[in-house]
Amino acid sequence: MRVLAAGEKVTRAGVAVEVGLTRATVSTLVDELLVAGLLEERGAQRPGTVGRPGTALALSATGPAGVGAEIGVDHLAACVVDMRGVVRCRAEAPAANRNRPAPAVLAELAELTARVTAEAEQAGLRPVGTTIAVPGLVGRDRGTVLRAPNLGWEDVPVAAALGERTVVENEANLGALAELWLGGHDKLADFVHVSAEIGIGAALVVEGRLFRGARGFAGELGHVPVRPDGPLCSCGATGCLETYAGEEALLRAAGVAAPGNSGEQADHADHGNSGPAALREAARRGDPAALLALAEAGAALGIALSGAVNLLDPQAVVVGGPLADLAPWLLPGVRRELAARVTDRQWRPEDLVTSRLGRDGVLRGAAYSSVRTVLDDPAAWISTVTAKA
Amino acid sequence: MRVLAAGEKVTRAGVAVEVGLTRATVSTLVDELLVAGLLEERGAQRPGTVGRPGTALALSATGPAGVGAEIGVDHLAACVVDMRGVVRCRAEAPAANRNRPAPAVLAELAELTARVTAEAEQAGLRPVGTTIAVPGLVGRDRGTVLRAPNLGWEDVPVAAALGERTVVENEANLGALAELWLGGHDKLADFVHVSAEIGIGAALVVEGRLFRGARGFAGELGHVPVRPDGPLCSCGATGCLETYAGEEALLRAAGVAAPGNSGEQADHADHGNSGPAALREAARRGDPAALLALAEAGAALGIALSGAVNLLDPQAVVVGGPLADLAPWLLPGVRRELAARVTDRQWRPEDLVTSRLGRDGVLRGAAYSSVRTVLDDPAAWISTVTAKA
Repeated sequence: MRVLAAGEKVTRAGVAVEVGLTRATVSTLVDELLVAGLLEERGAQRPGTVGRPGTALALSATGPAGVGAEIGVDHLAACVVDMRGVVRCRAEAPAANRNRPAPAVLAELAELTARVTAEAEQAGLRPVGTTIAVPGLVGRDRGTVLRAPNLGWEDVPVAAALGERTVVENEANLGALAELWLGGHDKLADFVHVSAEIGIGAALVVEGRLFRGARGFAGELGHVPVRPDGPLCSCGATGCLETYAGEEALLRAAGVAAPGNSGEQADHADHGNSGPAALREAARRGDPAALLALAEAGAALGIALSGAVNLLDPQAVVVGGPLADLAPWLLPGVRRELAARVTDRQWRPEDLVTSRLGRDGVLRGAAYSSVRTVLDDPAAWISTVTAKA
Repeated sequence: MRVLAAGEKVTRAGVAVEVGLTRATVSTLVDELLVAGLLEERGAQRPGTVGRPGTALALSATGPAGVGAEIGVDHLAACVVDMRGVVRCRAEAPAANRNRPAPAVLAELAELTARVTAEAEQAGLRPVGTTIAVPGLVGRDRGTVLRAPNLGWEDVPVAAALGERTVVENEANLGALAELWLGGHDKLADFVHVSAEIGIGAALVVEGRLFRGARGFAGELGHVPVRPDGPLCSCGATGCLETYAGEEALLRAAGVAAPGNSGEQADHADHGNSGPAALREAARRGDPAALLALAEAGAALGIALSGAVNLLDPQAVVVGGPLADLAPWLLPGVRRELAARVTDRQWRPEDLVTSRLGRDGVLRGAAYSSVRTVLDDPAAWISTVTAKA
């Protein structure tokens, strides 16, 4: 299943070569997967130069699917992807979630996920589970949000509110997994992924797996010290990356009004005119304060990333999420600091990569991580389905 | 073998519980290992409260052994450890290796390793391989030192000069592995290990394995930026940790003469009066410049480590190598910065650990990594021995 997820127009013979099993064994397995509706045949395919033509196989466009949901500070979203990672249904609603009671947020989110799930089922898909992306710290049980300061949440049992087969995951982690699985990078398995909305979220992918650290807190790039005597950070330390490149600090430095904060409610319809959009607009028209703030944030990000690269030696640094929209103004500083500070190894400018997934990376990563369980263990899914039938 | 390496007075029944095999299977395997001389029996042992007493097993004090060797700037050393990690033979020679021709260094080292190897063989041990610790960057083949600035080496084929079954490894990596295997820590499998002689060497252990990064350069804590506008570093960047806490910077700040540098030759017999020893002495008698320099180096180390902890979320930070000798003066600053900057997770003062291995950590790690191959795959060793016989 993984070979077929990664490649196009692969035949039984091609799979056999990749996984190191005999052609006969692979054929037996493929037949089971075809019967279970996990694979489709796609017509004759001539592999290389010799041998009989094989039949190209592909992951099924129907069959199991994954539901993803996203709780943002100013929006909610849900989508369904099929096994190929293609988005099949999508729904989004602007929302002012900062300090909004969690039950209200979760009820609205449940409505969105129910809507896309029903739509997917009508299209012949079978949603196997839901993954919810949250801007906060998730408990080991993958059900509870321990802390999401930008939502004002503490100890909220999120998964239970969305029904069975639901897990919660930190949005930065899902953004990184989306790059790994769906980012269109060739053989990129070790990277630092950085994204930002209100805080700076980063996640580490090592040998094709999320690196969570001993207690699940790895990837806190936002609190890496940039200038130890710098401004006071919300975390209590001074000079953290967030005090230079977090959204709030960036907007303040640029003289751009921040979006609705605690107490005030942002205009629901104002999604496109949020702080980051206003900042981008200001940068586009050459506003000096905006350009200076972005240049300084880029340098700070580059300094923190240099430390991360020196420690971790990743193949690449991937910039994604809303940050990617500000790339033209942020990245020169990032590049300059990386070039100046990653000196002891080969670091090439092309090792800094901008995500091609756009704003939907996290949401697609959430949905795909739900269906990924079937790719990882198709037999388990088949036996569940058989037991039900 | 690993269960017996980790525990004391373990019986066949105890091993069966640990590895999840039946007692009968374990008994068969144990008998093979006893015949091969890899294990010894140690008399009756009553496990817990019920059941017949079992016979305690232990790794053999004879049988396979590992040779370790160390190339320092001012000394050479070699030792042999048995499978239990106990040092059985040891030899050391002061040497002024900075910019000394590599063939002369390697010839002298070969003499030392030959001496300890012969001694070990006379004691009934069978050395299975040699690991050489170097203060530099090692090639992927584990045979060549690509660059060791403090020795003045570039592209030196080190392993070939010491004969068959020899590999080279970076000293910081071996120091970290020594902590993992021999450090006496309970269940410590995820940590940042930091040591310093001339440069700052760090290594990461993740899930009980050395974390090398995508290209083998991981762990460069010495070039993590501490103060981006700080002093120029030998690497070309500014404000790296090494410019505050590297030996050269530290000695200069403390007003203590550095040991023989390029051109001048340090007195061979002067090992105990080297720069670090003089610095320790100055700190001990309360010299204000030395105390200030150590306080600032400790703070810089703490700032860099805070970034590493925020990124990697290790169980602990272990300070080893010559740095451990300066712990009383360095660690307060390290502790203070960690407490102030690792805010988003649980960080306890006891998560900063000083190595108990002393100066020999790297050397013992080298030797033990040689014999560790037998613990990892005893069957391969047995078949090699059988083929020879």
